[in-house]
Amino acid sequence: MTISVSSRIKLAVKREDREATIIRVGDTLVGGEKIAVIAGPCSVESREQLMEAARSVKSAGASMLRGGAFKPRTLPYSFQGLGVEGLEILAEAREETGLPIVTEVISPADVEIVESYADVLQVGARNMQNYPLLRRVGRADKPVLLKRGLSSTIEEWLGAAEYVMDGGNGDVILCERGIRTFERLTRFTLDLAAVPLLKEVSHLPVVVDPSHGTGHRSLVAPMARAAVAAGADGLLIEVHPRPEEAKSDGAQSLKPGEFRSMMEGLGPVAQAVGRIL
Amino acid sequence: MTISVSSRIKLAVKREDREATIIRVGDTLVGGEKIAVIAGPCSVESREQLMEAARSVKSAGASMLRGGAFKPRTLPYSFQGLGVEGLEILAEAREETGLPIVTEVISPADVEIVESYADVLQVGARNMQNYPLLRRVGRADKPVLLKRGLSSTIEEWLGAAEYVMDGGNGDVILCERGIRTFERLTRFTLDLAAVPLLKEVSHLPVVVDPSHGTGHRSLVAPMARAAVAAGADGLLIEVHPRPEEAKSDGAQSLKPGEFRSMMEGLGPVAQAVGRIL
Amino acid sequence: MTISVSSRIKLAVKREDREATIIRVGDTLVGGEKIAVIAGPCSVESREQLMEAARSVKSAGASMLRGGAFKPRTLPYSFQGLGVEGLEILAEAREETGLPIVTEVISPADVEIVESYADVLQVGARNMQNYPLLRRVGRADKPVLLKRGLSSTIEEWLGAAEYVMDGGNGDVILCERGIRTFERLTRFTLDLAAVPLLKEVSHLPVVVDPSHGTGHRSLVAPMARAAVAAGADGLLIEVHPRPEEAKSDGAQSLKPGEFRSMMEGLGPVAQAVGRIL
Amino acid sequence: MTISVSSRIKLAVKREDREATIIRVGDTLVGGEKIAVIAGPCSVESREQLMEAARSVKSAGASMLRGGAFKPRTLPYSFQGLGVEGLEILAEAREETGLPIVTEVISPADVEIVESYADVLQVGARNMQNYPLLRRVGRADKPVLLKRGLSSTIEEWLGAAEYVMDGGNGDVILCERGIRTFERLTRFTLDLAAVPLLKEVSHLPVVVDPSHGTGHRSLVAPMARAAVAAGADGLLIEVHPRPEEAKSDGAQSLKPGEFRSMMEGLGPVAQAVGRIL
Repeated sequence: MTISVSSRIKLAVKREDREATIIRVGDTLVGGEKIAVIAGPCSVESREQLMEAARSVKSAGASMLRGGAFKPRTLPYSFQGLGVEGLEILAEAREETGLPIVTEVISPADVEIVESYADVLQVGARNMQNYPLLRRVGRADKPVLLKRGLSSTIEEWLGAAEYVMDGGNGDVILCERGIRTFERLTRFTLDLAAVPLLKEVSHLPVVVDPSHGTGHRSLVAPMARAAVAAGADGLLIEVHPRPEEAKSDGAQSLKPGEFRSMMEGLGPVAQAVGRIL
Repeated sequence: MTISVSSRIKLAVKREDREATIIRVGDTLVGGEKIAVIAGPCSVESREQLMEAARSVKSAGASMLRGGAFKPRTLPYSFQGLGVEGLEILAEAREETGLPIVTEVISPADVEIVESYADVLQVGARNMQNYPLLRRVGRADKPVLLKRGLSSTIEEWLGAAEYVMDGGNGDVILCERGIRTFERLTRFTLDLAAVPLLKEVSHLPVVVDPSHGTGHRSLVAPMARAAVAAGADGLLIEVHPRPEEAKSDGAQSLKPGEFRSMMEGLGPVAQAVGRIL
Repeated sequence: MTISVSSRIKLAVKREDREATIIRVGDTLVGGEKIAVIAGPCSVESREQLMEAARSVKSAGASMLRGGAFKPRTLPYSFQGLGVEGLEILAEAREETGLPIVTEVISPADVEIVESYADVLQVGARNMQNYPLLRRVGRADKPVLLKRGLSSTIEEWLGAAEYVMDGGNGDVILCERGIRTFERLTRFTLDLAAVPLLKEVSHLPVVVDPSHGTGHRSLVAPMARAAVAAGADGLLIEVHPRPEEAKSDGAQSLKPGEFRSMMEGLGPVAQAVGRIL
Repeated sequence: MTISVSSRIKLAVKREDREATIIRVGDTLVGGEKIAVIAGPCSVESREQLMEAARSVKSAGASMLRGGAFKPRTLPYSFQGLGVEGLEILAEAREETGLPIVTEVISPADVEIVESYADVLQVGARNMQNYPLLRRVGRADKPVLLKRGLSSTIEEWLGAAEYVMDGGNGDVILCERGIRTFERLTRFTLDLAAVPLLKEVSHLPVVVDPSHGTGHRSLVAPMARAAVAAGADGLLIEVHPRPEEAKSDGAQSLKPGEFRSMMEGLGPVAQAVGRIL
């Protein structure tokens, strides 16, 4: 019995005449032999914080830098990100480190400005079914990192990818980041089986975010290893120079030294499954 | 032991000096003694279909007319709504029947045009955490019907209301429409306990959508009765002249005669809990 | 589109030649016109506590008395019930009040002794798929109140009923008591749509437990009204003379005066849907 | 922020003065450096089927043989296992292959007979809160493999282990086997983050069942690799000589050749995380 998805999903699914999609971002490829590690803080909080994070993840071997300038927050009173100033800081970090930038866009109206800075446009879990946003990034020139919705089925997720691809942008990276379940000791339940399942039904690259997926710093490294062992093409890892001072997601952010250790432990696992880090 | 929500939620919660919010829409009040029944098709499909639905729900006692002109759909190949043409048909139905119009808006950029036609702006479940949209309807002059996200907690839902209210628009109607669970015989699990719970912690009116909440025509009337018995201020009911031909949600749409029966059965229940229909 | 369940479920499903099952317990019928209200404390804690509870629920109009003598608890260090002593206290309360007794059985080996005291054997949510227990109560002479498992689908629940009925005991009362979801403000999510759904596919009577289903005293009365409005044949309500001293489930237990109020509010709702209380 | 569980859980939790529990089963250790691979069919169906399965998993390097003689099934009409005859076949397979036997027990009354054949007593997911059964295996002389309930939190799971340990049997192996969520393409959602989380809070060994956890043969090998990378002490793998003829769980059972491939791929991953296979 093989796994099959709705026949109405056309562009995101495997076909005999389609090769696995490999997406070029600067010097990095996502979906090839090398595991892409996208690391950095949840939010860009200041120039100092971001530059420090960027240098540390670069030196530990990250392939790209992540950092949010526009933040979707549960309450309007929480820190909402630095906006365009955050994008400028990200661009400066790219200039210094050479790392391509992944950052979130939360409104169709912001795509133009975000696209002028970012190398990859992230669509967050809460916006996975924000169809006007999906259509808009579908007309963008940059790859899209599409996070799975908190309670989206894999079919709905592929349906969201379909919106982006139908708009003309075939460079979609799927990102598993944990689904909402009854379990309370972890922030979400990281659905790693989605990785080999997607590899079976889709040609798109798949990355995993064990930081949001677990909500606990101590679980990030083992779940990063598990993600690579399951066949993930990359990882999204929150790293903050001083997590205890982070304006968001401190409990799940690695310190630079922890990130370095994680990378060291990851190499042998990548090799064990025929990949390189 | 009383139920309490995060103290960071400020505007949507009950306080001693706040009365229950009653929202005027045309001649109808939402949150008062009378149960507000918002009925009509999932999508506006044609002038004929909508006018027929509007007349039938009006004659059966509905307070408002619903109908989608901008439809969020899982796949880009599904019917996406008639757009502005749909809004014009809705306005024509209002003119003929006198029923205020409730219709969904899915993008901040569309709020201006939708607002120029609609009496109530609906924010759908998939957009409950689309913060730019929430902020934009927070600056609108029309009440907002805010559906609960598929897997949003009640606290997150109140957080979404907080965005609208913080923008200056205090006229928020909360709509329970079913949450995603493991049960497969129903489309969603209608969380009716959210109704008395919200009545305990919030001053906002609460309506219930048993059509989406169950996904089955035969369950709509009993769950509408249950919603009113639980204390709901209103109902959102899908009615279609010919559900078997509907472009969306046919299985959960009542036929006009079924809607009339539902209304007849609802009156005594409303009365039993001190309300009128 | 009608709702259908697996054709492998044979005894618990509706058929043209089967009438709705009405179960006689003492002078009470479950599944008839009258709503059966089964009330009492979570656990039998002492003779005094139970007698006081029994008298109060009797005087407020309950049809049966509930109380646990064998308690399944998450930890071995929690109060596990009074066992046979508890059964004797229950029997004494029946003698004084005339109320039939509903009490839980958690092991096949205990069925014989529990059956010698109880009028209805309760199988709890945690044991819904304890098949040796289901088979054993299937050979008992007393009706079985079968609670839905915390995360059991409706089909699995009917499958559990099938075990009891296949053993020869057709007197099964289904009890919806809330399912496990992501929502945290309530203890469980009461799935009231299961009531009309079961009425459509099965001939068995269905009762609802809004005490466990919500976990909050203040939500019990509105959800009891909702259950009756949705078509439930009865209710299971936790009542304790002094909930603040209860050894289990105090937060969701009504005080005697609250139970009396609940009953008063319930009568008109029952009448509104063609039932009597 | 470290992860902590209820302080009422006493025996199953880590303490400074407690070493990690290593459980001896025949020549195999569970919880040590070597990954324990428990393989075999879901059900013992015949002497031929089991012997063939036993020889093939032995030759591929399995540490123990699994096979169900008493089967908990959703409907009473499904194959319920061969009972004692199945136990005798298992014992014969042990004699020939030297592999210790893991088999399920579903009733307290069966523990004595099952214990007289089995090397490890399995308590299945549906019985995780069957407290009389937990107490009974707590008095047994054999290690207990305790599967997580379909919708049990990690704390409730440790509470179940506590029952066994409180009875005097400290040899408890925890087995993650997937939890129930909304996702429909997989049978359950394998919660691999439970593995490092349990390693942080408990001293008990943890194994993973990717067969039940995914429900698809093609996902078993990648998820087995992921489980080992996440820190699991062992695996439970369904292997059937002819899955297409299996009386239960055929779709998730590996063929002998697939099991052999899985083992070959697993060795390097074990080594990458400092373990051996």
